[in-house]
Amino acid sequence: MFLPEPIQRLIDALSRLPGVGPKTASRLAFYLLRSPDELSSELSEALATIKTDIAYCQRCYNITTAGRELCEICSDSRRDQNLICIVEEPLDVIALERTGAFEGVYHVLDGALSPIEGIGPEDLKIQELMARVEGGEVGEIIIATNPSMEGDATAMFLQGQLKGLVARVTRLARGLPMGGDLEYADQNTIQRALAGRQEMK
Amino acid sequence: MFLPEPIQRLIDALSRLPGVGPKTASRLAFYLLRSPDELSSELSEALATIKTDIAYCQRCYNITTAGRELCEICSDSRRDQNLICIVEEPLDVIALERTGAFEGVYHVLDGALSPIEGIGPEDLKIQELMARVEGGEVGEIIIATNPSMEGDATAMFLQGQLKGLVARVTRLARGLPMGGDLEYADQNTIQRALAGRQEMK
Repeated sequence: MFLPEPIQRLIDALSRLPGVGPKTASRLAFYLLRSPDELSSELSEALATIKTDIAYCQRCYNITTAGRELCEICSDSRRDQNLICIVEEPLDVIALERTGAFEGVYHVLDGALSPIEGIGPEDLKIQELMARVEGGEVGEIIIATNPSMEGDATAMFLQGQLKGLVARVTRLARGLPMGGDLEYADQNTIQRALAGRQEMK
Repeated sequence: MFLPEPIQRLIDALSRLPGVGPKTASRLAFYLLRSPDELSSELSEALATIKTDIAYCQRCYNITTAGRELCEICSDSRRDQNLICIVEEPLDVIALERTGAFEGVYHVLDGALSPIEGIGPEDLKIQELMARVEGGEVGEIIIATNPSMEGDATAMFLQGQLKGLVARVTRLARGLPMGGDLEYADQNTIQRALAGRQEMK
């Protein structure tokens, strides 16, 4: 193409981000070119340091600032260390924390079981979870893997592993999402909502 | 929030890009964190140099590599230097070049007339265009401003300015939907619009 190399290079790099096609990449690149120096330099610096400044909590495997052994949640004495919520990704921790409705701690698996993609139990932080459970006095484990094939398989597997070791193993409720429309819900969701119906008190 | 500062900083910077909300920014940040070092470093370096490595062509005001006086198109002897296509933005040049249907050169106005936003003729590269027209032997000027209120107003204004100075002043044919954006139009639409350009009377 006839584009100057510096901007082509930026467009190429932006195009590699998920959900960013060549046209969006061009728009972003030209937006950055026209906006104050400070935006591109701030973004550049944040990107330059992200890999070195972020580490993983040695207990729950959520992200934390490099240099810390435990993340903020694991080292927070107000959190219930005996209530563990298992999630697939750090982004899931953010989603749960945003609700303010959970007072326990997390365990980030770093994915879900997927025979198709060749992801087995040894690829996830399951051994680390078992060590954590065996070493402590965990009262309840909430399995919050995604409501997908892989998430379900992972939940079933974990339930088998944890049986007898933890008093209570629960899973996030399935049902109709808030604000959703019954007529637009898929069959599986409605089936689950029916099966999991609850007494009105 | 409880997020480690390095990733929060990256999310904040990404959120300032157009069309990127806080959730998309989080997704992108975590994607960058998980992908090979090379992607974030490549993006970081491209961003760091974009402002200093890009300059503007002193003839058409399109972007070019810093250190060059004229852009690749203006310095290309195979291009018809007497056929000038006037566009609002460098992105519009890309859209037109992608069609391969134009053999002339460009003039980038750097915007369009907009009384509401307080953008008058003196804010655009119109003086520079007039100097270019008066100094050369321009055979035809194609006005390719966006098919919008501002683009129309700009085209009308330019027509008035250019009358008597240039043999032919044309405008891209309608076929471009009103309110649309030139850079988003597909190649065929742009090609048709180029081929069907009409005399301004």
